Amino acid sequence: MPTPSYHSAQLALDLVGVFVFALSGGLVAVKKGLDLFGVLALAVAAALGGGILRDLLIGAIPPVGISDWRLLTAAGLGGLVTFLYHPGVERIGRFVRVLDAVGLAAFAVAGSLKSVTFGMPPITSVIVGLSTAVGGGVIRDVLAGQVPEVLRRELYALPAMLGSIVVVLAGELGALDDWVLWGAVALVFGLRMVAVRLDLNAPRPLRTGQQQRK
Amino acid sequence: MPTPSYHSAQLALDLVGVFVFALSGGLVAVKKGLDLFGVLALAVAAALGGGILRDLLIGAIPPVGISDWRLLTAAGLGGLVTFLYHPGVERIGRFVRVLDAVGLAAFAVAGSLKSVTFGMPPITSVIVGLSTAVGGGVIRDVLAGQVPEVLRRELYALPAMLGSIVVVLAGELGALDDWVLWGAVALVFGLRMVAVRLDLNAPRPLRTGQQQRK
Amino acid sequence: MPTPSYHSAQLALDLVGVFVFALSGGLVAVKKGLDLFGVLALAVAAALGGGILRDLLIGAIPPVGISDWRLLTAAGLGGLVTFLYHPGVERIGRFVRVLDAVGLAAFAVAGSLKSVTFGMPPITSVIVGLSTAVGGGVIRDVLAGQVPEVLRRELYALPAMLGSIVVVLAGELGALDDWVLWGAVALVFGLRMVAVRLDLNAPRPLRTGQQQRK
Repeated sequence: MPTPSYHSAQLALDLVGVFVFALSGGLVAVKKGLDLFGVLALAVAAALGGGILRDLLIGAIPPVGISDWRLLTAAGLGGLVTFLYHPGVERIGRFVRVLDAVGLAAFAVAGSLKSVTFGMPPITSVIVGLSTAVGGGVIRDVLAGQVPEVLRRELYALPAMLGSIVVVLAGELGALDDWVLWGAVALVFGLRMVAVRLDLNAPRPLRTGQQQRK
Repeated sequence: MPTPSYHSAQLALDLVGVFVFALSGGLVAVKKGLDLFGVLALAVAAALGGGILRDLLIGAIPPVGISDWRLLTAAGLGGLVTFLYHPGVERIGRFVRVLDAVGLAAFAVAGSLKSVTFGMPPITSVIVGLSTAVGGGVIRDVLAGQVPEVLRRELYALPAMLGSIVVVLAGELGALDDWVLWGAVALVFGLRMVAVRLDLNAPRPLRTGQQQRK
Repeated sequence: MPTPSYHSAQLALDLVGVFVFALSGGLVAVKKGLDLFGVLALAVAAALGGGILRDLLIGAIPPVGISDWRLLTAAGLGGLVTFLYHPGVERIGRFVRVLDAVGLAAFAVAGSLKSVTFGMPPITSVIVGLSTAVGGGVIRDVLAGQVPEVLRRELYALPAMLGSIVVVLAGELGALDDWVLWGAVALVFGLRMVAVRLDLNAPRPLRTGQQQRK
């Protein structure tokens, strides 16, 4: 069992998740034609939203997303990188998906891990892991005015939930080590990428939510 | 006065509210053309959102919505039932309204009751009851990309607020028993249904928010 | 340093912010064609949303936005005033901006001040100040179905962040008095109004987010 202090794996997972969700949030902002400030704001909201939601749910006050300089720097940096070096618009769609899958994986594990170390019940830790993973993306999409990815895509929440279950089970069995954690990250990422691949070949239109609005 | 422990009326009200808001959330998802996952996600968000908001506002960590198996099962079941047996699309609109009124009533009473048992000030308990009642629907509508029902419909929040006031007054007078609680539920439901009936006959178009977008 | 009790400057700033954000929220509702209830609901959400978010982030349970009669009255009054006396629709756009700037300034200072008095770390207090300032407007815009102002406008978040930094620095230096607080309010308001003036002359269309939807 990890100690309740800010474990190094916890920090690494949080940093990875924050950075890639910042890129993902920034790219959605670029796609929506927002300016520098909009890109930074959406990047930070997408990056920190899931972790702040997690910390509110488990009573970790103040949330690390607004108290740890490293996470804030990673979020701002992700937004800035996106603004300066974002690829051509036609390549953005697929890239956002991959980044999203990395963030989903890192945050599912980081979220359930922190909930376990805070002594929450197993079922709570699974849901907290899932909420950490999908929360930032939901906030990003709601702010950008589109129906959240998690509602439009099959197998978006499921991989995150499975990863959280692995972490919680390992915690119950006293087997929570770095191997399990990074294995759970790989599991979530792998499952999500398979889903993305199958999605891309499916006949369903890419942006159902937006098309319904027109 | 009920004890601060998880009172049986509290549980019954929470279960009823969770189940019917899950149906209501699921039906909105069906109407929006979302797939199985979208239906389940929107059902769970609508069902648990109000109670989680309540628990965050009164400091009940972790929120029961993410720690009690019975509520989670009721939410998932409501979503599944909607997906499998939803009535024809033309009948959905009115059915959502009735379910919404049941959930509104159960959650207004469950929310204000829990706030009273947590020793919150009377004014806080009234607002917490109202927030519990409208919170899930607001989250449902924001996620589904439509202007929340509570902003578009007269007499949506008012019945919930009146029901909460009844609970808070009964609590202040030391007269909180099951009769008062279920009476308050009936009051909220009755008022809301009267409003729905009048609404249906009113000249206003059914979906103002959506029409403005076109 | 102010005492952790509900300081008079804190109350004044909260009241000013609540009232003007209620007007701003009400005017957005009027513009969207909502009825009396929609106007009141959006006014209250815009007015109290930022402060409730702040109190959740710093663990001030229950949030003053749902426990202090004066704030609730100010919010309701702002909504009612808007409904009864809102100016002609053609003058609303600019007026919302000015009110928004006043609320932004009052809430940036009120938010960072309360966070400092709750003993939060400096970086947290800056972000809490910013969140208090932009939170109500974001909630208002999301509920009204438009991309939040903070994502569409340059120099919206920046003045609020600078004002929060001034408050936090003064707190660190033990120099937090009423002069500093109201000076910080004037700074935020002044910077924001300069940005609004430049914005109005800029070639960018007034409502980018909405035009993209059409």
